[in-house]
Amino acid sequence: MKKPSGYITLTTDYGIKDPYVGILKGVISTIAPSAIIIDLVHEVEPFDIAGASYILAASYKEFPEGTVHVAVVDPGVGSSRKPIAIATRNYYFVGPDNGVLLPAAKRDGIELVVNLDREEYYYRKPVSGTFHGRDIFAPIAAHIARGTPLERLGTPISVEELVGSPIEFVCIKDRGRVKTRVIHVDRFGNLITSCTYEEFEKAAGIAMGSRVTIRARSGESYRAIYKESFSLARPGEMVVYRGSLGFLEVGVYMGSLSRLTGLKRGDELTIEAIV
Amino acid sequence: MKKPSGYITLTTDYGIKDPYVGILKGVISTIAPSAIIIDLVHEVEPFDIAGASYILAASYKEFPEGTVHVAVVDPGVGSSRKPIAIATRNYYFVGPDNGVLLPAAKRDGIELVVNLDREEYYYRKPVSGTFHGRDIFAPIAAHIARGTPLERLGTPISVEELVGSPIEFVCIKDRGRVKTRVIHVDRFGNLITSCTYEEFEKAAGIAMGSRVTIRARSGESYRAIYKESFSLARPGEMVVYRGSLGFLEVGVYMGSLSRLTGLKRGDELTIEAIV
Amino acid sequence: MKKPSGYITLTTDYGIKDPYVGILKGVISTIAPSAIIIDLVHEVEPFDIAGASYILAASYKEFPEGTVHVAVVDPGVGSSRKPIAIATRNYYFVGPDNGVLLPAAKRDGIELVVNLDREEYYYRKPVSGTFHGRDIFAPIAAHIARGTPLERLGTPISVEELVGSPIEFVCIKDRGRVKTRVIHVDRFGNLITSCTYEEFEKAAGIAMGSRVTIRARSGESYRAIYKESFSLARPGEMVVYRGSLGFLEVGVYMGSLSRLTGLKRGDELTIEAIV
Repeated sequence: MKKPSGYITLTTDYGIKDPYVGILKGVISTIAPSAIIIDLVHEVEPFDIAGASYILAASYKEFPEGTVHVAVVDPGVGSSRKPIAIATRNYYFVGPDNGVLLPAAKRDGIELVVNLDREEYYYRKPVSGTFHGRDIFAPIAAHIARGTPLERLGTPISVEELVGSPIEFVCIKDRGRVKTRVIHVDRFGNLITSCTYEEFEKAAGIAMGSRVTIRARSGESYRAIYKESFSLARPGEMVVYRGSLGFLEVGVYMGSLSRLTGLKRGDELTIEAIV
Repeated sequence: MKKPSGYITLTTDYGIKDPYVGILKGVISTIAPSAIIIDLVHEVEPFDIAGASYILAASYKEFPEGTVHVAVVDPGVGSSRKPIAIATRNYYFVGPDNGVLLPAAKRDGIELVVNLDREEYYYRKPVSGTFHGRDIFAPIAAHIARGTPLERLGTPISVEELVGSPIEFVCIKDRGRVKTRVIHVDRFGNLITSCTYEEFEKAAGIAMGSRVTIRARSGESYRAIYKESFSLARPGEMVVYRGSLGFLEVGVYMGSLSRLTGLKRGDELTIEAIV
Repeated sequence: MKKPSGYITLTTDYGIKDPYVGILKGVISTIAPSAIIIDLVHEVEPFDIAGASYILAASYKEFPEGTVHVAVVDPGVGSSRKPIAIATRNYYFVGPDNGVLLPAAKRDGIELVVNLDREEYYYRKPVSGTFHGRDIFAPIAAHIARGTPLERLGTPISVEELVGSPIEFVCIKDRGRVKTRVIHVDRFGNLITSCTYEEFEKAAGIAMGSRVTIRARSGESYRAIYKESFSLARPGEMVVYRGSLGFLEVGVYMGSLSRLTGLKRGDELTIEAIV
């Protein structure tokens, strides 16, 4: 477990029209005045656990070791789902037990999970039924950033007790192909899939410059080239490539693939090397 | 009056496509390099004084004592409306004298109001006709955060001289009901009203689980249940509940009430207990 | 050349739905933990070099001296365009060599330009083909903020070797008029042009309160009044005025000129004094 760095990142589906994100920062600043708070994304689609998982998994390791990553995408708020904190080899993760933290935490190597059941560290007692970001996750993150050990903040539980990664995040490897899903469409209309490019390359046994087929669940299929990078394509060319954040991505250079094909978040894709 | 904490929050209708918010931060950082600036909301609808009032009133007390809250929603910029600063029991408020600061400031307890007429503390002389955020409010907030007493920044005036709270913020209590307005629609489509839930409960004399009627000005009326929390409703059920920020809210669990009913910001509602 | 202030501003077309901006901040914080990062705008239209140029030119001088301004709007990423850093009289600028930095840098007075060819200061080697914000510009900005001299970060080149300012940023002065373009439409629907108001006043030889004609490329023409400030117009009146950021702007008081006329970013305008 790393010494906390004092940095805290926030990923939520709170949007930017409401004061919810600002309130999280107020709560953190009240408890840990020297913490430095960095926004990851607040425009996660409401309740999109897979989308938030992707953002965390793609970003967590670009922050100083000991950073606390908070994710609040929480359709089960107010139900009996557990609030949890995870210590990994290099980072801390705080959020609801609905799978949102797992893809990132597993990549980094989970060392300890606690159920955040020590109410004396909550911001407000009783906690509200709808705003656990303010009442539990922000204050716990602040306490971790200040150096309170996880063992004091909750009761250790095993990884097996946790709700698994969201189904949309899974990558099914087969001979010559992967079955994957669109977990995010970025601003430029590129599709980010739930497979890493390493998983794809291993399953497909593919060389740079080879042709691939992309089959959508709807029956549509598309041909593309496998490239190292997006920017090596010709304008208008459809390309499967090594995304800069480690994932397999699909795009059209200087165009929006999402608009062109109608493919969107959640769509199932089979991507296959043509031999 | 509290010692300034060094924290400054910003609430504006500047949006995020223009450099105006960044410029406020540059000005503050130039005057008070160790100030910590936190964004509340910049996507307030242009000129929506009531919406900004709600954001401030809902958030101000979640920040460290001595925080300076700046609100710039200012349709009267360039006219003769006064720039003001208010010291309350625990916080400072800076903005135009158009009522935007009052709901929050009154809740916290007003101790001193000054008319910001000391031009030596402005950022630019003469001030521009359109950008008092940069020229007056940001620099004044920075000076307060650095410890300059309010009495040096302006001339004391009485609360009675101030422009009142925006009309949309008012809550009219009657026997068994409240007359209120939608002051904000949050990202999830929930309606935040201008009454606190305490005001409603007192006027309506209502118990948790009771039925209520919501009458819109248009003549439409809806039935709902009064609940402690949003998340205690069944999916699809219309519910009036204790909002986590202290206001009375109306929503549909796992759906957008705003989309469902067409109700929107500014709409007048009568919410009444069914006996 | 100024001593770095520790402040870094970011201007990108990354948007707020993706984790790219957060990742830039993670990289900067890892290299320069005490740097203070301020967002200028991340909602620049994808690949809109002129729009980003405007934002930088309008804002750079409102920050503490020694601030590092980073702009990443980079349609040529992955090609052979140079990554550059510029020291001006009071600031530093970091970004791609595509003209985006020049309008601001020239205003402040360029003292040194370097081609960022020292890979030992990159964040990742080999750099990705698509994410030079993370791999080059953010780490270089962090090194400058920490005090590494520009001469160590790259090879000096001359201003003449640089790609020029984007064509849309140019202001052509003629007798009695200027030919300009809409480089930005702000949130309120006002058009910001690529001429400063000083350039216009000198070319047009115009007095406050005079009448002007605005001719669009489409053939449409409009009459307006020249005013010191937007807020001195009557509601509904079309007005050409001294924008608060130094540019010549066109607007309608209490209305959206952009919506009213259909004029948009990139449109060519001739603005002429009526004699």
